[in-house]
Amino acid sequence: LITALAGGVGAAKFLYGVVRLIQPEDLTVIVNTADDAEIYGLHVSPDVDTVMYTLAGLADEEKGWGVRGDTFNFLEAMDRYGHDTWFRIGDRDLATHVSRTTLLRRGRRLSEVTRTLCKSLGVKSKVLPMTDERVETKVSTDEGMMDFQHYFVERGFKPRVRSIVFEGVEGARPAPGVLEALKEAQTIVICPSNPVVSIGPILALEGIRDAIRGAPAWKVAVSPIVKGAPLRGPADKLLRALGMEASALSVAEIYRDFLNAFVIDEQDSELVPKIRAMGLEVISTNTIMKNLEDSVRLAKAVLGAKP
Amino acid sequence: LITALAGGVGAAKFLYGVVRLIQPEDLTVIVNTADDAEIYGLHVSPDVDTVMYTLAGLADEEKGWGVRGDTFNFLEAMDRYGHDTWFRIGDRDLATHVSRTTLLRRGRRLSEVTRTLCKSLGVKSKVLPMTDERVETKVSTDEGMMDFQHYFVERGFKPRVRSIVFEGVEGARPAPGVLEALKEAQTIVICPSNPVVSIGPILALEGIRDAIRGAPAWKVAVSPIVKGAPLRGPADKLLRALGMEASALSVAEIYRDFLNAFVIDEQDSELVPKIRAMGLEVISTNTIMKNLEDSVRLAKAVLGAKP
Repeated sequence: LITALAGGVGAAKFLYGVVRLIQPEDLTVIVNTADDAEIYGLHVSPDVDTVMYTLAGLADEEKGWGVRGDTFNFLEAMDRYGHDTWFRIGDRDLATHVSRTTLLRRGRRLSEVTRTLCKSLGVKSKVLPMTDERVETKVSTDEGMMDFQHYFVERGFKPRVRSIVFEGVEGARPAPGVLEALKEAQTIVICPSNPVVSIGPILALEGIRDAIRGAPAWKVAVSPIVKGAPLRGPADKLLRALGMEASALSVAEIYRDFLNAFVIDEQDSELVPKIRAMGLEVISTNTIMKNLEDSVRLAKAVLGAKP
Repeated sequence: LITALAGGVGAAKFLYGVVRLIQPEDLTVIVNTADDAEIYGLHVSPDVDTVMYTLAGLADEEKGWGVRGDTFNFLEAMDRYGHDTWFRIGDRDLATHVSRTTLLRRGRRLSEVTRTLCKSLGVKSKVLPMTDERVETKVSTDEGMMDFQHYFVERGFKPRVRSIVFEGVEGARPAPGVLEALKEAQTIVICPSNPVVSIGPILALEGIRDAIRGAPAWKVAVSPIVKGAPLRGPADKLLRALGMEASALSVAEIYRDFLNAFVIDEQDSELVPKIRAMGLEVISTNTIMKNLEDSVRLAKAVLGAKP
């Protein structure tokens, strides 16, 4: 049994490899929902969708978001009606948001809705939103406070970040099944996701960090930072906004209190002694995932390191 | 100034001809909204959309509904999620329903929302939903009571109709501008729409029938029934459910209290004496509209008959 903590694209690519090595039923993924947004009155869960589409084999791997081969006729028509269209919702993708929103309006919880959607798409792994409650990442920048999607998608993470808050995280409870999945896992993996805004909100939920610390599993994290830069997204900028160096070392620092092992890219091998000095086992390997073979290779290196 | 009462396809085809003969700004269309439905949590106004798309030059004239060249990728994905998909919403068409729904949720009235949508699509005529309040056509059939769209689209108007009610029509007020448009018109046209479920709800609104009767305009209606059968839809079945003959004569009967002239198809010319006997002027012409030229020809015959 493997339980993974996941954000969006990096996590999804890695998990796509994991389910080639184990029974998909043996994987539980706890997904960040602090990036969720309301777009045109619809509840959009970008990280949940990326993980779900990837595990369903539907993801657009080239773009890194959305459904492969999707069309954008709805969005074009929304543009004609004068709506903002920086959040690129495809026509097939839209069905996910409409389905989710109608189910939520009928009073179902996000975790139940996610289970229903995953079932329809044939996803056999368990995909759990981190919480059924509303937690929202807000980014304070030199252009003012903004929602994460505005900062990330609309503004292309250009504004200078001063600080980050996860609104609503105090008192928000992990979704049903989350703490159990951590307790029962043989391996807990922190996917190569942004440690600040993807894994950060999950770890900030009440009880999660303690549950990981106390869990009997072997615990491993994969660095999303290679040679001081993230493979995508603003992890470097956000680490610096927190006063940390943009380095795999900082990522290890954030997770060190509960980790057994840390996976870095082989290009960062000069960091091995420093990470060992934190008391962590280090796995140095090629962490760049350009295709399914890369994902399987990395998943093998990570899972194969378990004693 | 022309004010038209309209349902869906038949009305739209006719009005498409009318705006070739007059300045589009001089046309006001009062549209039935008793067929409106909530689909996937979205407010759909089928007749308003058909009229709006037609006047914008976007209508799919072959299918008779929706946007020309539209794709159905959203709907296909909704099917995968287990939703009913008998109401065929295209990807571009969907933007109309999402826009309308978000504006309504922000507290705007249907008539304001319709004005906004029409403006975006470049529609210069005034399109007025008959009311901003909720009126719903319910059809009592031998398979039970059902919403109009369930009867019409899902069940293909097959169940045997016992009676029809317009729920909410008592006390519902005409939308802003409706009574004024009737008062100020030089010509009031009842489009070739279903007299029972398309024009019927408009006439059932408080004050509308009296406003038409009292208006100084020349008043003319076009029969949607030719040789005892509607060109499309269930008008014959619904007339019979009301105990009337399925004939242009019955349509004239329904409107005779306020009409000056009635337009029938030349194939029905044997009805001319009977309609004259009701005190109405009769225009007998080719009312079948297969293309824009047909629409213009019919519009000319109707408007040209004004004394």
